[in-house]
Amino acid sequence: MAEPIPSLELVERVIAGERRAIARMLSRAEAGLAEAREALDHLYRRAGRAHVVGITGVPGSGKSTLVAKLAAAVLDTGRKIGVIAIDPSSPFSGGSILGDRIRMGEIAGHPSVFVRSMATRGALGGLARGTLEAVDVLDAAGYDMIFIETVGVGQDEVDVVRAAHTTVVVSAPGLGDDIQAIKAGILEIADVHAVSKGDKPEADKAVSELQSMLALVLPAAGFKRAVPVIKTSSPRNEGIAELLAAIDEHREYLATSGLYEVRRQSIRERRMLKAAQQVLHDEFERHREGRMAGVIAELAAGSISPQTAARRLLAHIGIEVKR
Amino acid sequence: MAEPIPSLELVERVIAGERRAIARMLSRAEAGLAEAREALDHLYRRAGRAHVVGITGVPGSGKSTLVAKLAAAVLDTGRKIGVIAIDPSSPFSGGSILGDRIRMGEIAGHPSVFVRSMATRGALGGLARGTLEAVDVLDAAGYDMIFIETVGVGQDEVDVVRAAHTTVVVSAPGLGDDIQAIKAGILEIADVHAVSKGDKPEADKAVSELQSMLALVLPAAGFKRAVPVIKTSSPRNEGIAELLAAIDEHREYLATSGLYEVRRQSIRERRMLKAAQQVLHDEFERHREGRMAGVIAELAAGSISPQTAARRLLAHIGIEVKR
Repeated sequence: MAEPIPSLELVERVIAGERRAIARMLSRAEAGLAEAREALDHLYRRAGRAHVVGITGVPGSGKSTLVAKLAAAVLDTGRKIGVIAIDPSSPFSGGSILGDRIRMGEIAGHPSVFVRSMATRGALGGLARGTLEAVDVLDAAGYDMIFIETVGVGQDEVDVVRAAHTTVVVSAPGLGDDIQAIKAGILEIADVHAVSKGDKPEADKAVSELQSMLALVLPAAGFKRAVPVIKTSSPRNEGIAELLAAIDEHREYLATSGLYEVRRQSIRERRMLKAAQQVLHDEFERHREGRMAGVIAELAAGSISPQTAARRLLAHIGIEVKR
Repeated sequence: MAEPIPSLELVERVIAGERRAIARMLSRAEAGLAEAREALDHLYRRAGRAHVVGITGVPGSGKSTLVAKLAAAVLDTGRKIGVIAIDPSSPFSGGSILGDRIRMGEIAGHPSVFVRSMATRGALGGLARGTLEAVDVLDAAGYDMIFIETVGVGQDEVDVVRAAHTTVVVSAPGLGDDIQAIKAGILEIADVHAVSKGDKPEADKAVSELQSMLALVLPAAGFKRAVPVIKTSSPRNEGIAELLAAIDEHREYLATSGLYEVRRQSIRERRMLKAAQQVLHDEFERHREGRMAGVIAELAAGSISPQTAARRLLAHIGIEVKR
């Protein structure tokens, strides 16, 4: 950074919506700097107004293009839109794959759009470290809707669902059999389903298949709300406004049913737990050469199991596990 | 269970290779039962001989079929083969998607093959809870090679790499642009690359593209070993023996370079940390209504941030974080 700005001064600038201040605060959140903690706590208390939407889907579903179109639709309604794109970056070199500008196409430079890519390297779960703090930053800065975009199947989806108010799962017609299996696995995490590539001839079949699967699975899993399936075509700009309407309706549904507060609290508790686990991780790294050295040597000799070593790690920092 | 067997009696039966005993012990490992801990510790100390191979790849890559063929090739060399398939199961209903028998085709009933599907529900990382203990069980039971098969991109891959001695990434020709982006992200995690669907005309192009990318990326990331790219065709049974040979060579490479012990120790440390984090999670759940109730109420009122709440959670169970 050219001129270091104290974090608490940055807070005011972030709340005023200054783009450079937002960018710097996001970098500090991503780096997990201890100095930024107080500032992020301030921003957390100023946040809570934005609608946080997780958007996920299997590779090849055209999700990134759809996100750009959807962001443009949010802009059209006069709202400010923030996009946090989680990149499947290398766990070793940490390189991020897609540029923010390439990702968002024509709306990349718009003053009411803020796009940020974050790498998953080093995080405890499927989300990048600092993702949820980044949501707070954009929320406090006045962004009305915030997308968290992830690529993947598996843990990433589960984490994004647990961080968002509304989850959109994007699938595409004709991606082969494996996709069906995955769809079955992540069927229930969606509050709204989008079927992309709606211009393809197989799209209608994909929509009705998805609807049949939902009709079968959701009531059995105790879901009461019908989950909409929206057919979209990014090149033709079709279904985008309908998709946004479905997302907005879900926000309404959460508010009127009282589920919004339930979901927010579960997000907060999960964040707390993740933060505590991160501390444990940091403590271990800090004491690796010191207090933990004996346990590590025993572990290396194979004389104790990782489970036993874990209980010693906890005991070293003051936790006695009774069971 | 029809007749409950004490865990320590089961240990002897597992070591003797009794299939029903193995199946029961795997269930206990997956359930995370406290009663099974001592037994699993015993098995951990008896384990350490098997070659653990992580096999991962994007959806649509034909990975499951390839795994079945590869397992058959291991059998042909006179070795016993265990397969742990991580299913992208629903985080809510927990249903597993593919049956074990369907998955393995013709070798499903072979006495030297043991196949087990595990669901990712409720785990802290991308792997299912108990996956690494399941590896110990099969290892102690005398399985020479153990595959951990995951579907996914993102955190799942990273976790499987950190649990395996050798990691195989399966890609398929012609799966679209997103695949390229992901491939770039997970390029460096592979010790061996497999390009499936080698009967397709685009397969040779995919192999040479992958080789070019590796030539570019690996030296820059400080890798010294050349990573083989093997073209396979499951229906034609081509490239399968070559893939197994490349996996065996990597095991040799680890042993002769001294990296095998380094990798084993990093797996052990990671397991320890995960186990400690699981304890933290369990402690939180246990004290949710009791000791933690005040913190949870403050969190719900928005008067403290999740970060602050995390420090209180840790303090409640005896950890003071100085920073």
